[in-house]
Formats: sequence, C-alpha cells, structure tokens
Amino acid sequence: MTRQAILAAARAAFAADGYERATIRAIAARAGVDPALVLHHVGTKEELFVAAHDFPISPAGLVAALSGNEGTLGERVARLYLTAAFTEGSPFQSLIGGALTNTTARDLFRQFIERGILDTIVPRLPAPDARIRVLLAGSHLVGLFLMRRVLGVEPLKDADLDYLVAVVGPTIDRYLTGDLGSLPGSALAGAAGPPAGR
Amino acid sequence: MTRQAILAAARAAFAADGYERATIRAIAARAGVDPALVLHHVGTKEELFVAAHDFPISPAGLVAALSGNEGTLGERVARLYLTAAFTEGSPFQSLIGGALTNTTARDLFRQFIERGILDTIVPRLPAPDARIRVLLAGSHLVGLFLMRRVLGVEPLKDADLDYLVAVVGPTIDRYLTGDLGSLPGSALAGAAGPPAGR
Repeated sequence: MTRQAILAAARAAFAADGYERATIRAIAARAGVDPALVLHHVGTKEELFVAAHDFPISPAGLVAALSGNEGTLGERVARLYLTAAFTEGSPFQSLIGGALTNTTARDLFRQFIERGILDTIVPRLPAPDARIRVLLAGSHLVGLFLMRRVLGVEPLKDADLDYLVAVVGPTIDRYLTGDLGSLPGSALAGAAGPPAGR
Repeated sequence: MTRQAILAAARAAFAADGYERATIRAIAARAGVDPALVLHHVGTKEELFVAAHDFPISPAGLVAALSGNEGTLGERVARLYLTAAFTEGSPFQSLIGGALTNTTARDLFRQFIERGILDTIVPRLPAPDARIRVLLAGSHLVGLFLMRRVLGVEPLKDADLDYLVAVVGPTIDRYLTGDLGSLPGSALAGAAGPPAGR
C-alpha cells in the first residue's frame, strides 16, 4: 500500500518536474511519507522511475548484466530487456506513446535515458564512445518493442523469445564491445559525452 | 495540384478503409479524378501509401537497394532509410505517433509493413526466414528514428549520417543475408510466411 502510494507520487512528481528536477524529498512529501521510507521501499531515483513506469530495463539490472562474462554480454542484455518488455500488461507502451505525443513526456523519457541510464552504465564500459554504443543497442531494443508489442507485425509478434535472444544478442555485443571501425571526428566528439553547455 | 489532391484522398481512404481494403479506384473517386491519373501521378498502391505519409523508405527503393552488390547491401539500405528518415519535416513521426495511440492507425501501419513492404521485398531475398530477417533489420531502423528524431537523445541526435551508415550497415547486412544460427521450429514456421487463416 505504501509502495503503491510512493509509486503514484513518483509518477506525478516526474510528470510535473521532469526527471532531473524531481527529488526523493518531493516525492516523499507528495506521498506523505518520510524520505527514508522511499529509499527503503524503492531505492534510488533511477529505480523509482523504473518501478513507477514499469520501464522494461533498469540501470541496476544493466550494471549487473554488464559485470558478467564478456562473450555472452549481448545475450544477457537482450534477454533481460526482451523478457521484461514482452511481458503482457507492461505499461511501457504508454510511456513511449506519451513521448511521441506530448513534449513533457518526451523530455522526461529523454532525460531518463540520458541521466538515469547512460550516466549510470557508461562508466562501466571501457570504450570512449560508450554513450553512442549504448544508444545503438538501445534503439534496436526499443524498435523491437514497437514492431512486436505495439504494431504486432507477424512473424515477429509470435517469434520465440530464445530465438530473438540468440539472433539479437550478437548485435548488442557488437555495439557494446565490438569493433565499430574508425569514427569520424565529429561523431567521436559527440559520442564522448553530453555536448558542452548541458 | 492534382498530385496533392490524390495524396490527400489517399490518406483519407487509407485511414477510413485500412491498407488492404483501400483501392486505387476508391482513392481516385475521393480525389475526383480518373484511376489512370492516380497511377500516372503516383504509381502503385504501395507508392501511394509511401507518398501520402512521407514514409521514409519505399518498397520500390528497397527492391532497388537489394539488387546491387551483396557486400554493401546493409550500408545501402541504412543510407536509404536514414537519409530520408532524418530529413527535417518528415511526418513519419505522426504515423508512428498515431500507431501508438489509436487502433485504426496501428492496423494501417501494420498492414502496410506486412503487405506493402514484406510481401514486396521478401520474394527478392533467398532465405526461408526472410520475413523475420527484414523485421529484425526494420526494428533497428525504426528504433533509431525514435531515439534520434523523436526523443532527440544525445549523442545520437547529432551523430554524423556517414558514421551511422558505417556502424549500422553491418547489422542490417547480418540480418538480411548473414548466418543467424539454427532457428527453433516454431520461429522458422512463423518466419516462413503469415500464419494460416490470414
């Protein structure tokens, strides 16, 4: 009950204040509980966003997936995401739908990807272009959700999860750790971190 | 002027009747012109859908891209799509937005992918699992549009087009023509064509 109240307060606070400006303290105040209780029930702000929106992949889960054997990294990340994203009833769809149709939701989603996901996992990846590598992998995973769960295009709609993990895993591996060839100067500069002034 | 009237009539007809049931004849009637004039101005029903929605990749363009040298197939497809999708002012976003928020637009989009794109290009690909191969490639391309153009996540938002073509091309190549390993029976059955009864 308390947890549900905290998650509802978090959704309201993120929608009103955006990802960066929403604080644990403000969320606790909205829920009428002590900030320590928020941390006890849900943990960090990243985890709070994930839990409140049923986001199919959490920064903490990604960090755990990144810490295992490198040869199966792509498969672990693909399985983690696809299993959660393809679970019936996931409200991830309304998050993407909101991002496409209103600016507030779009900013919230972008901020969570840039601050909640990239800032958390990029330091665990050794490559200087880690940010764009994660986005190349992420764009494929989000696209699979769109084609399979939202549009329901056959035969992707009914494809076996193990099959998808096996074929998509090597793509994720290549993006996260493989040789992407030489990068043009501009892309590498952009890929090294957020642009100046942000 | 006639072309604009035909495209407006096509959008209305596709929205009202869906992709499969909308006919060139009905679109011509809506525009108040002869069906021959529709074919003269825009060509096939697939091309009419593409032109009316500024869809970033056309079945005819894909067929042309597939007919060249196999070693650079992925780069050609990636360049064709990314160039069109990343052009400012492309209304592809409203097509995806509609697909996420209303059932009619979702069915229209899915029917166009299944009938307009897959039915046209799958016969040009030799693999028995060509349908799901095209969808794996397409899901990545659509996801890139979402991350870059809709959400505007940095550094993908400002990444160089040539860089993206170079890194994404091999992924598209692998999905369209590479070794995807052995498929489980269920996925292969689903991948061979639309399910029975459709």
